[in-house]
Amino acid sequence: MEFSELIKTATVENVVLSCAGLPAVKGTLCITSHHLLLSSCPGGDSQPGTMELWLLIRNVDAVEKRPQSLKLEEGWHLYPLEQYFQQISSQTSQWRLSNVNQDFTTCPTYPGTVIVPAAVDDDALRKAARFRQGGRFPVLSYYHPKNGTAMLRSSQPLTGPNRRRCREDELLLGTVLDEEERGFIIDTRSAQAAKQARMSGGGTEPKSFYPKWRRLHRPLERGRPLQESFIKLVEACNDSSISMDRWLSRLDSCRWLSHVKAALSTACLAAQCLDREKVSVLVHGAEGTDTTLLVTALAQLILEPSCRTLQGFQGLLQREWIEAGHPFHLRCAHSAYSHARLKQEAPLFLLFLDCVWQLSRQFPFSLEFSEQLLLTLFDSAYASAYGTFLCNSEKERCLCKVKESTHCLWAWLNQPGERKKYLNPLYTHNPLVIWPSVEPQSIQLWQGLFLRWIRSSQYLDEAWAEIQHLVESSKALGKESRGSRLSQSLSDPTARVESER
Amino acid sequence: MEFSELIKTATVENVVLSCAGLPAVKGTLCITSHHLLLSSCPGGDSQPGTMELWLLIRNVDAVEKRPQSLKLEEGWHLYPLEQYFQQISSQTSQWRLSNVNQDFTTCPTYPGTVIVPAAVDDDALRKAARFRQGGRFPVLSYYHPKNGTAMLRSSQPLTGPNRRRCREDELLLGTVLDEEERGFIIDTRSAQAAKQARMSGGGTEPKSFYPKWRRLHRPLERGRPLQESFIKLVEACNDSSISMDRWLSRLDSCRWLSHVKAALSTACLAAQCLDREKVSVLVHGAEGTDTTLLVTALAQLILEPSCRTLQGFQGLLQREWIEAGHPFHLRCAHSAYSHARLKQEAPLFLLFLDCVWQLSRQFPFSLEFSEQLLLTLFDSAYASAYGTFLCNSEKERCLCKVKESTHCLWAWLNQPGERKKYLNPLYTHNPLVIWPSVEPQSIQLWQGLFLRWIRSSQYLDEAWAEIQHLVESSKALGKESRGSRLSQSLSDPTARVESER
Repeated sequence: MEFSELIKTATVENVVLSCAGLPAVKGTLCITSHHLLLSSCPGGDSQPGTMELWLLIRNVDAVEKRPQSLKLEEGWHLYPLEQYFQQISSQTSQWRLSNVNQDFTTCPTYPGTVIVPAAVDDDALRKAARFRQGGRFPVLSYYHPKNGTAMLRSSQPLTGPNRRRCREDELLLGTVLDEEERGFIIDTRSAQAAKQARMSGGGTEPKSFYPKWRRLHRPLERGRPLQESFIKLVEACNDSSISMDRWLSRLDSCRWLSHVKAALSTACLAAQCLDREKVSVLVHGAEGTDTTLLVTALAQLILEPSCRTLQGFQGLLQREWIEAGHPFHLRCAHSAYSHARLKQEAPLFLLFLDCVWQLSRQFPFSLEFSEQLLLTLFDSAYASAYGTFLCNSEKERCLCKVKESTHCLWAWLNQPGERKKYLNPLYTHNPLVIWPSVEPQSIQLWQGLFLRWIRSSQYLDEAWAEIQHLVESSKALGKESRGSRLSQSLSDPTARVESER
Repeated sequence: MEFSELIKTATVENVVLSCAGLPAVKGTLCITSHHLLLSSCPGGDSQPGTMELWLLIRNVDAVEKRPQSLKLEEGWHLYPLEQYFQQISSQTSQWRLSNVNQDFTTCPTYPGTVIVPAAVDDDALRKAARFRQGGRFPVLSYYHPKNGTAMLRSSQPLTGPNRRRCREDELLLGTVLDEEERGFIIDTRSAQAAKQARMSGGGTEPKSFYPKWRRLHRPLERGRPLQESFIKLVEACNDSSISMDRWLSRLDSCRWLSHVKAALSTACLAAQCLDREKVSVLVHGAEGTDTTLLVTALAQLILEPSCRTLQGFQGLLQREWIEAGHPFHLRCAHSAYSHARLKQEAPLFLLFLDCVWQLSRQFPFSLEFSEQLLLTLFDSAYASAYGTFLCNSEKERCLCKVKESTHCLWAWLNQPGERKKYLNPLYTHNPLVIWPSVEPQSIQLWQGLFLRWIRSSQYLDEAWAEIQHLVESSKALGKESRGSRLSQSLSDPTARVESER
């Protein structure tokens, strides 16, 4: 679709341009397929002549719409890591908070504070960081309260062609496991790719130096091929003159659903290790900022009921995507519609949202938030009035003063009037693990996202609004509510609820 | 799947076999992969020795479970054609009821009574019948009250290689249209197939003899290729070790979704002719008992709100599938799992149900019945405790005394306790035409049917049950109900409801 087709209002009169330190300019704003043009009113109040501003649309990075009701500082500290750590420390003393990265020198893409094994000091962390790509030493991603197992994440070790080793890194991973325990390393690259990485300085943890850890390779697509997959899918979805054969063969050849399936399968594997095999897990690929986060975040949604609430999900995104250093700025610079094919662009976060949507379809009661939230998050990652998804890391956000000069998306979403729009009316707290079906037959195209520009979702939206209305009036009337009824069936051990298969 | 895997209870003690005119036999019932075996108790009350009955399972045509609460005669006359005709005759005198087929000699696959143009007498009908395959002369399928246009259906004319003609058939179709009016013939075969049919005695209506009718060819799959498509889809759905690529390529190559799309598109075309172009339509393929009924029944669901209620839908099935002579016995003799590949087997009725399901997804408010009804109808067409889908025509049903010796499915479904299970809790009467999207991207796999044996629909079923519960308690509490709220928005002409696009 051409950009010009999207222009609904080409001209707006009486627009005021404010530039810090300069007098305001009043004039007419025009938009064309290529330019944003402000032409000042001739003989305007403060301007003797006319002035024209031509702005190449390609140069516009983001458009910000200023919310009126929020205070700037709100929401940025809703989900501190300290709070998550408190939950853990109430159950075990095996972990500690470390401020080793407070000035972002140990790892430029980690937040200032991370959770690490209590037995390892900051000095050892600094040394382990030098042995991991981008300084991403192993940190705690999730502590499984049910049995005390842990999920860690990192980047690849820098073993290189000469099989370098690092005692502090070995020690760090060693202390995670007790004498008799074994752990799994889930490498999100193929065995071959991991081996090849040694030629460029990377690699994997050799069995000989990490004897308690067993490595599993679960290759997940990333980078350019994933972006191509996304672009192909969007093209196929927007082809209005396509035949059924051609549609299915393009759906197949773009491989997007395969990527969804692979991501969910790998997350299930990690969750199974923790919950069923009762072993700790380290997840990494190469950089540890993409597929690694995809797996650790999804595994937590599967395992942990508190991540499935609206607030818990925001906390998860904050901890496992934003603060964990997923490079949003590089990955979500343009949409699939853009002609600019940037090298670093890749829809990892969309892939995550799609997997969450699959969970929401398979477990219609278990997520407190609705599809609408996932759509809003997708939009916000690409273009937003809020600063939440700006920059690539906490370090960059500090340098750009994101938290001082932009609003936080969570603060906006959590306002009572907004919050309502993103709730799943059928939600009931489900204390169990939700194991999704990952058979190809069970993976569906996310029509609400991929077909949103070609087919109205009006009737489905109305249906959900109606259900929401019913739940509310049923609650307001104080009758035996859905919640209480289902809670009953949950507390009845013979009742079958969304649960383990 | 092997049949043996489906056996949950292999042996039942103390079973009584009753055979009319013989003493009852008490014994043990066993089921194996191939046989049903009744072994009488040695030294039982009335039997001096033991007796064994071996029944080859392949020879079992149907298993009947006798309902206790129904009277035999109930339900068979719930939807008489006379009642449908009354509605029509209150608006126009252009049509009449004819009993020309009362003894099934004019057309063995038509019911005793049909609706025909008032201007055509029974003698002309008999002559027209001789000019149509299987005697299926053009009859009224649907009268569109909005503008007085009509949808007729028939079988192909027997023009043959010598271009035979029949004045009475020409007259019959001629009288449907006024002086200035034009009509469309929707032929569900390709132009080539229709032409080839002349070699075996069939053919199409030549322009020269039917000058007011314009022919459109919309080929729909039927017969063996459709059955193969169904079998391939079921095989692909039940393949638990399939990759995503392979799954999508098998979904593509089985072509089932293409058939769904084609059926919906052709029904939309018929509906558009009536509603938008304001012209009458004749639908036929070859026999007029398969794709013809698929199109006429679907078009009515799209156009006619009264067909979208639970009762209205039963009436539609009764009129347009059962009494219209769809050969259920031949088409639904075995399921897709059967090794016996019968020549006449074809899932036309399933294809219809799938299309109805697509409508229900796209218009979640507009059908009063739920997916559960569609699943029950599918099951009932293949194996049922009720006689409704037995035999191939009303003539056969009379000969077999189906209405005297079996129960009617509708009577069972309409009992208050049963009826509840098949209702769509979100239903609101929608007086408008519902135009479905028939783009390939909009056609979904009917997971509730095709994946029902491999994936539990428990959570989704519970979600619907929950919504139903909410609607009921909201109604019971007499609060502003969903129904009234939506009726309001329907009566407000500016409100956007499920409607014409």
